Formats: sequence, C-alpha cells, structure tokens
Amino acid sequence: MASVLLAVFVNGKICKNPNMVSANDFFFPGLNKPGNTSNAQGSMVTLVNVNQFPGLNTLGISLVRIDYAPYGLNPPHSHPRASEFLFCVEGTLFVGFVTSNPEDPNVKNKLFTKTLYPGDVFVFPEGLIHFQFIVGKTNAFAFAGLSSQYPGVITIANAVFGSDPPINLDVLTKAFQVDENVIKYLQAQFK
Amino acid sequence: MASVLLAVFVNGKICKNPNMVSANDFFFPGLNKPGNTSNAQGSMVTLVNVNQFPGLNTLGISLVRIDYAPYGLNPPHSHPRASEFLFCVEGTLFVGFVTSNPEDPNVKNKLFTKTLYPGDVFVFPEGLIHFQFIVGKTNAFAFAGLSSQYPGVITIANAVFGSDPPINLDVLTKAFQVDENVIKYLQAQFK
Amino acid sequence: MASVLLAVFVNGKICKNPNMVSANDFFFPGLNKPGNTSNAQGSMVTLVNVNQFPGLNTLGISLVRIDYAPYGLNPPHSHPRASEFLFCVEGTLFVGFVTSNPEDPNVKNKLFTKTLYPGDVFVFPEGLIHFQFIVGKTNAFAFAGLSSQYPGVITIANAVFGSDPPINLDVLTKAFQVDENVIKYLQAQFK
Amino acid sequence: MASVLLAVFVNGKICKNPNMVSANDFFFPGLNKPGNTSNAQGSMVTLVNVNQFPGLNTLGISLVRIDYAPYGLNPPHSHPRASEFLFCVEGTLFVGFVTSNPEDPNVKNKLFTKTLYPGDVFVFPEGLIHFQFIVGKTNAFAFAGLSSQYPGVITIANAVFGSDPPINLDVLTKAFQVDENVIKYLQAQFK
Amino acid sequence: MASVLLAVFVNGKICKNPNMVSANDFFFPGLNKPGNTSNAQGSMVTLVNVNQFPGLNTLGISLVRIDYAPYGLNPPHSHPRASEFLFCVEGTLFVGFVTSNPEDPNVKNKLFTKTLYPGDVFVFPEGLIHFQFIVGKTNAFAFAGLSSQYPGVITIANAVFGSDPPINLDVLTKAFQVDENVIKYLQAQFK
Amino acid sequence: MASVLLAVFVNGKICKNPNMVSANDFFFPGLNKPGNTSNAQGSMVTLVNVNQFPGLNTLGISLVRIDYAPYGLNPPHSHPRASEFLFCVEGTLFVGFVTSNPEDPNVKNKLFTKTLYPGDVFVFPEGLIHFQFIVGKTNAFAFAGLSSQYPGVITIANAVFGSDPPINLDVLTKAFQVDENVIKYLQAQFK
Repeated sequence: MASVLLAVFVNGKICKNPNMVSANDFFFPGLNKPGNTSNAQGSMVTLVNVNQFPGLNTLGISLVRIDYAPYGLNPPHSHPRASEFLFCVEGTLFVGFVTSNPEDPNVKNKLFTKTLYPGDVFVFPEGLIHFQFIVGKTNAFAFAGLSSQYPGVITIANAVFGSDPPINLDVLTKAFQVDENVIKYLQAQFK
Repeated sequence: MASVLLAVFVNGKICKNPNMVSANDFFFPGLNKPGNTSNAQGSMVTLVNVNQFPGLNTLGISLVRIDYAPYGLNPPHSHPRASEFLFCVEGTLFVGFVTSNPEDPNVKNKLFTKTLYPGDVFVFPEGLIHFQFIVGKTNAFAFAGLSSQYPGVITIANAVFGSDPPINLDVLTKAFQVDENVIKYLQAQFK
Repeated sequence: MASVLLAVFVNGKICKNPNMVSANDFFFPGLNKPGNTSNAQGSMVTLVNVNQFPGLNTLGISLVRIDYAPYGLNPPHSHPRASEFLFCVEGTLFVGFVTSNPEDPNVKNKLFTKTLYPGDVFVFPEGLIHFQFIVGKTNAFAFAGLSSQYPGVITIANAVFGSDPPINLDVLTKAFQVDENVIKYLQAQFK
Repeated sequence: MASVLLAVFVNGKICKNPNMVSANDFFFPGLNKPGNTSNAQGSMVTLVNVNQFPGLNTLGISLVRIDYAPYGLNPPHSHPRASEFLFCVEGTLFVGFVTSNPEDPNVKNKLFTKTLYPGDVFVFPEGLIHFQFIVGKTNAFAFAGLSSQYPGVITIANAVFGSDPPINLDVLTKAFQVDENVIKYLQAQFK
Repeated sequence: MASVLLAVFVNGKICKNPNMVSANDFFFPGLNKPGNTSNAQGSMVTLVNVNQFPGLNTLGISLVRIDYAPYGLNPPHSHPRASEFLFCVEGTLFVGFVTSNPEDPNVKNKLFTKTLYPGDVFVFPEGLIHFQFIVGKTNAFAFAGLSSQYPGVITIANAVFGSDPPINLDVLTKAFQVDENVIKYLQAQFK
Repeated sequence: MASVLLAVFVNGKICKNPNMVSANDFFFPGLNKPGNTSNAQGSMVTLVNVNQFPGLNTLGISLVRIDYAPYGLNPPHSHPRASEFLFCVEGTLFVGFVTSNPEDPNVKNKLFTKTLYPGDVFVFPEGLIHFQFIVGKTNAFAFAGLSSQYPGVITIANAVFGSDPPINLDVLTKAFQVDENVIKYLQAQFK
C-alpha cells in the first residue's frame, strides 16, 4: 500500500493522502555491511528491489550488493526482466556472459569474459546467462544496477536441477545428453 | 534495408519509396512442412522472426513451428526478450516452466507442468526456463507465438556446457556442486 | 483477482499469496474444437485473451482460433491495440489489409492481398483494416497470435452500421457519399 | 536526415553535428490559416506530424487543425497508433466514437456522442472509430493532439470502398450483408 | 474508481460494470473561459489531466489552456513525464527552451527561442526547461498538448527557492555562486 | 557504428558482422579513479552513458561516479529521461529532491531530504530536481545508476542563468520576482 502511495505521489496517478509520504520512503540504509558469504557458493547477493524498498515503485530501476569470499562464485544466472551493469568495488572478479543463439552457427553461444579490477564496469544484457567468480584467495565486493524495479533471478543450476518438484528425469537426461545417473547425481546436490 | 522500408511504409516514419513494398513482404510460406527431427533432441524449431520475415519489423510479434519425433524434446531454454504461448496441434506434449527465485523460500524455483493434447494452449512468461517433451512413441507438432519480433533463445545445456569458448571449469564445478569430471563429461556432450 | 495474483507471482510485483497459483492458471484447453460457423458470415473467432485466460496478464500476447465455412468470411476489422500474425492450418484463405492514408496520394488506401495455403503466414500491422475469406466450397481453419493481452476488435460493418445507438444518418450519408436510403438499408442489416 | 539530427541532439543518442540544429527545427508556422473545405466532406484536416515537422521526432506527440464548412464532416476514421483529444475552438461539433467489441453482447459497438461548443474537449481512445460533424449552417474549427509522432489515419469509407485495388466484391457483399449492386454503388463513390 | 472503469471499458482489462460508463466520461467542458491572470506572473495554466478528466486514464495524452496578461510570463518550468507542443491561438508569444548539458562544451545549455504569432506551433522536448512570455501590452492565449496523462510540472524558481521546507542555504549559495543574502532575498519572494 | 553493431548482436536486429564484437565492448574501466573536484562546486560527475560506453546501447541503463571535496556540492539538477538511485560509498552526504507541483497546494514543491552514510541508498524519481551536498570537511564518493542509456542532465543554475544565449532578462526578473540587477548578478556568475 505504501509503495502504491509513493508512486502515486511522485508520478501522480490516483493520490489519496500524500501526507503519509516521507523522505524515509525513498531511503534504504545499510548496504555497507557485507553479506554473509558462508555458504556453498561463497557469495551473497543483497537485494534492493521494490519488495525491500517500496520507493522504487514505477521508477524502473533497482540495485544489489554482491559479496564474494575467496574463490566465491555468483553462479550462472539470468534476470528475466532487466539488463545489469556491475561495478567492481574491491577485489578481482572474473565475469562473463553467453549470448543467445543467433541463427548463424558461427556465433551461437558465444562466451564473453573479462577480469575486473576495482573501478571496472561490465554490462550483462537483458535475459542472458552471466556469472562472477573470484580467481584467488581474496574477498571481493561489487554493486550492480538493474533496469527494472523487480528484475527476478533464475539461478540456472538450481532452476534446472533443484526445482520443486524436480524436472522429469527423461527431460534432463536428453537435454544434457548424459546418463540418468549423472542427472540424479546433479539433482542430489540441490535437495 | 527492405525490412526498414516495410516498417516505414506501414508505421510511417522516414519512408522514401513505398512503391518498393508489396504483399509478399507481409507473407511467409511453407510452415506446413515438418521440420527435420533427426537430431539428438528429436525436435526442430523452425523460426519465423524478423530475420526470416522482414515484414515483422516494428510489429512486436513473431512465431515458430516446433516438430517433435517420438520421445522428442525441446530442451529447457528461455527467451530473453519475449513471452510465449504454445499451441499443441498434434500429439501429446508434456510441458513446464520454472519460476524465477522469489525471496520467499517456499516458492522459489517452482516447477509448473501440464500434459497438452491437441487444442491445448500453455503460456511461458518472459525469460523463464521452459521445455516441451513427448512422453511416448508418437510424433507431435505445435505452434508458438512470441511477444517480440526477435525473441532470442538460450538453450540452457548448450549455453552452459557448450559455449564458445567453454565457461571456466571452476565456475561450473562450483555452480553445479559436483566433481570436475562430471562437468568435463557434460561439456564433452556439446563439443 | 486470480489474474492479478498470477501476474504478481510470475513478474513479481505485490504478491500476497503465491500458493494460490497452479499450472492450470497458465493452461487453456480445447482449441481443437472447431467454432460454430453457422452464422451470416460463415466464420467464428474463438478468443483466448486475458478475459478467458488470466495467465496472460502482463505477458503482452494472446491468440485466437478462426474457423471458416465454405465461402466464409472474417469480415474487415481492426485491432486497436495489437499487430497479428495469421497462420493458415487448413483450407485456402484469401487475406488482405489496407494501409493507413499516407500523405502521398499515390499510396493511400493501398490494398495488399495474398492467397494462403496450409502453412502460410501473413501479418496484419497494428490498427489496420484486414479480412480473411474462403474462395471456394471448402472449410478452413487458422490460428492467430496478437501482440497484446487484450487486442480488442472493431468489426467495421457492425461498428459503422450497427452501433448502439446508430450513428447519425447524416454522418453516414456524407461519409459514404450515398443516398440516405442506401445507409438505411445497410443499417437494417445490423439490427 | 535533419529530423534524425534533431532527435539525437535533444535526446542524445548518436549526435554528430549539433551545430546544424536551430530553433526553426522546433517551430511550425501558419496553423491560423483555415484549411480549404471545398470538398465532398466539407472538412479539411491539416496535419502536423513528424513528416511535416521533423522536430517531433522521438517526442511521442503530434497535432492537427481541422476546419469544417457548414454541414461539414470529418468522416468516421481511426488512428492505428494514437489516442486523440479534440478541442473545439469555434462552432458547434457533434462528435462520437464506437467502442471495440467486448465479449459482453450488451455493450458491443456502443456509440458515445456529445455536442461540443467552443472550449469543450472530447477524447477518442487509440484505434477506435470516431467522427465530427457540423449540425447547422455554421463553420467550425478545432485542434487535436495525438499521442504519437505519426498517428496514421484510416478513413473507413475510403479504406473499405475506395482502396487500390478494390477489396473483393464478395468480401464486401458478405461483410455488409447486402446486394452486390449496393457495394458497387458504394465503391463508385470513391473512384 | 470511475476512471479505472473507463479505462477498463475502453481498453478492456478487468471491466466489471461497463454500464456505468457514459459519453460524459470522455468530455471536458469550459476551456473557452480565460484563466484568471491577476497574479504575480500574469499568466494562468488551466490543467486538463487525468486528475480533472478521468477519461484520459491509460490514453497517454493530456492538455492545458494557458492565458497571458500583458507582459505575462509562464515562468521557466519542466514536465518530468512529457513532451509538449504549444499552439499560439491569440497574441504574440516569445518562447524558448534550454537543452540538457551534452558533454560537448560547445553546445551545453543552448537556448532556442522563437516569437510565435497566432497559428504558430513550438515543441518542448520531455524534461527540458522552457517558458513563454508576452513582449508587449497585449493578451495572449495558447493551447498545449502533452504526451502523458499526468505530465507533472516543476516551476523552477518555486521549486528551487520556494520549496517546503526550503533547500539548505549552503546548497543554494554554492549552486548559484552568490552571496547568502542574494539567496535569502530570492527565497523571500516565494514565501 | 560500433554501438549499433553491439546492440544488433546482443538484441538481434540487423546484425551484419557480429565477428567485430568482443568482450571489450561490454567493459568500461577506471572508475576507481576519483574525479577532479578542484572546481567551483567541489564535485565531479564522471559519466558512463552510451556516449562513453557503446555497449549500453538498447540496454536502458547507465551509471555515474560522483566525487565530492569538503563542502562539495552536486548542485540542483534534473535528468529529463531517467530515475536514479544514489549509493553513498564514502563520506556523509546530505541529499534531497523537490516534488513536482501537484494541484493540492498543501503538498506542492515539497522537499524530501536525508543524510546518507556509507552504505545508504536514496532514489530520485524521473525528472525531479535533486542535489547532494557535503556537510563537513570530509571527502565523499558515490555511485549512481540511471534508468536510461542517455539520461541527460539539466544543471538548474547553469541552464537558467548561464544558457547560451542568455534567457531574456525580463523573463528571469519576473520568474524570480526580483530586481533586474539581481538577475544580472546571477547571470554574471555563469559567464
């Protein structure tokens, strides 16, 4: 409700009681605190989208803070509703994205990668699979801006091998062109 | 050039020579011919987007014909720039999609599936991973409409394990939480 | 309400109770059944837009099935909010559209027509008047995709001569540059 | 070329030589002169869209001046790419639009009309058929704003009965549910 | 509520009771009456946006009438959500806008001006600062169309020197590079 | 040309030679270097939009780095084509924006302010006037994301008092309701 009021007040649609709006509605504190990277991937994405920050409603933008432990990975994922720029603040990040399949067989599934140092920016076009990885024993930390108030995220491994309920074994066996046991083994990692 | 002219003629932007435009520019023949499904996945997607059909330029829509051999699979994939409806014309199709990860752990990576019979329609929201599979010894055939003149397609297995160059082994090992040999084995399928 | 929940769940806006969402929300059955073409035009359009299929909410796409009896006509009409591709599944369809009036007198009101056989696709740009007609004693059947979840339809003859209340007789007499009796006669067909 | 430069200069995309841009690019003179209404409809629409006024490029808006002779008519037409507000400056205008066909048979093809006096505004939603008519021996004059830099216009009678080449006689006979001679007579008015 | 219903009825989204809709919902009367220009600026803008005219909902357009007393000024302002065309109906208007700051120092903050006579049109691109001024002892009157149903307006002097609460004195002193007393003097005009 | 190719390659429109595209096209280095704040405002905005970084083309997002010297000011300005989030990395920033003028006199020109510490985020809605200021003898540094590939910027003081050519003295005198000498004095600061 609050977020609707904010949007209404600022962009002027159905506004009932703008007196309820205050500066705090446009404010989100605390992104200086590193996220907890004690997990299997060694990374943590702290989300600041319209769910956490109602003032973003109707504004077409959101952000995240990403922390990485040594050898930490923000695993291959895509955002169904946003392009993203990633700004490396600390550490060294190996980043990349894979293009969608053009008809031309020479360019399909092309991987573009780069090593980012503090102050470097990389951009991941809407909907494409991308990742960031720490090559070394250092921590790292980055910010990203996304072109949607609610970009969504599809972590590929989890969506494919860890969905609820699981994707049919025959589907995955055929898609990955491997033995059923390999798929079962992969699925077991995401239970 | 022709497609620019078409768009210009119909939607009226910079038109120079509309006399070059004819009915053929808005026409695409031959989708009654089944695609060749003699391949590893046992399916074939025949694309009709703005690359094949210039008359779609600026119109925000495109289509595909999909043919399936017995046990054929249109493997898990996503369209970075379009939602899709799928219409089952012949055969029986097991279809599904996985939601993006909401913050609520109870609903993340939820798989929705359905068995489609001729005349049934299913819809795959923009950017989400989805698939179609033939459960049985029959052929099938479907049409799909997409909400973009150039939707793009990311075949998950190929983009993740078959990109050019390959995604770093450490990235995939960590993302899928398996042994390096499993990843190498998976990558070997897409060389 | 259900459709709002679906949109929210998939595209992630204000979601309250995503547990209410199921695969059936993204499923629409029964388009294999021919529409009843026993009517004056000898055609029937079966609509599958957001009104019939709440899962289309926010997805920017919808579809229709169109059945034609021998000599059947989907009469000249326009969609105020969508472009359309038409896919001929069975039969032979004579289709066409008229361009909007450019300033250049050489190209105004240009009619583009084509005869479609099974497997042929034609595209009708947003807002333009178009039709499909069966030239012969055969049935036909087509599918169409539209670039809006609620495209709307304006059947020209009905909107002009059959509106409720009728358009002023003087307006129509002058617009069509004919005698009042001709207009009255036309209006009588749509009472 | 000039219009591309203007857009580029103002909205900042690929600008090469902004020094070519001047105030005249954003200026369109002479709409105080009444259009010549000595024609069959007794009305004249003076267009000011991106074709006449390159400065509108990328701005999403355009305008027209409409003059009416006594009993003059701006005949039923639609704009495929814009909504419109009409402001009555002088005279008395009878205006109306017909809704698109909702599924509910009680509301389909509903005509909304109003008599406008100087200073009154009416709005015609995107893509719907609308008209203005002078009921009386007075002149009138109006301005309209449209929500597109190139709205397009489809004059219904001309598009249906005066297209080049003509729409097939069988199509029109069936659509209007009248005798072939009535259609031929109508078509003869638009040769 | 009414405006939601209108939009729904015309553009077809969730319509419950279209019988509540009438022609009056698309009608706004009385813009022939000059606004009261007895104020410090000698001008009056009469707004006709979705707040005053619910029928504009979802239509992407709105309008204003602007009246000017001798030497009247519509002071420098911007519309955060719309481009605007201005049509001079009566009188002589000196108009202008300032471009946004391109990186090229040769073109930054460029002012484009023009003197408008009755029948002349000028266009102000989205978000840019613009004004209209009467150079002489005559009244004037104009209409403007805007590319949004709720364009918003930021009157620069009032927003900068008359906000509630006031902008910090140090901010304004530094921004305008003048003595504190000058800023206090300016602020005093907008209490 | 390069940026067009990139867009085409990634979003798939007219692609001629995708082999020209490399990872460097999606990479922008060096934002770790503070901007030079030795200027009148004591701040420096380093732009990373599509002009500096062609890979942003069609992606709907861009960014800036902002450095502040002690008592530095990013003076009141607006972005005609983007909303912005600002992330405070180092230092203490006093930030604010002024709402557009709603019709309700109780809420017009409302100023919302907040003091940001490292890790705090504030959001400035599209087109509204906003600023950042250092209250104290410390440096500061922030990043911002913007919802457009080319947001534009209008620095209010410079656009109003420093345009080329200057805005007419009578316009500014009346708009700011002060003596001509005050305006001349203000204009003199921006020569």
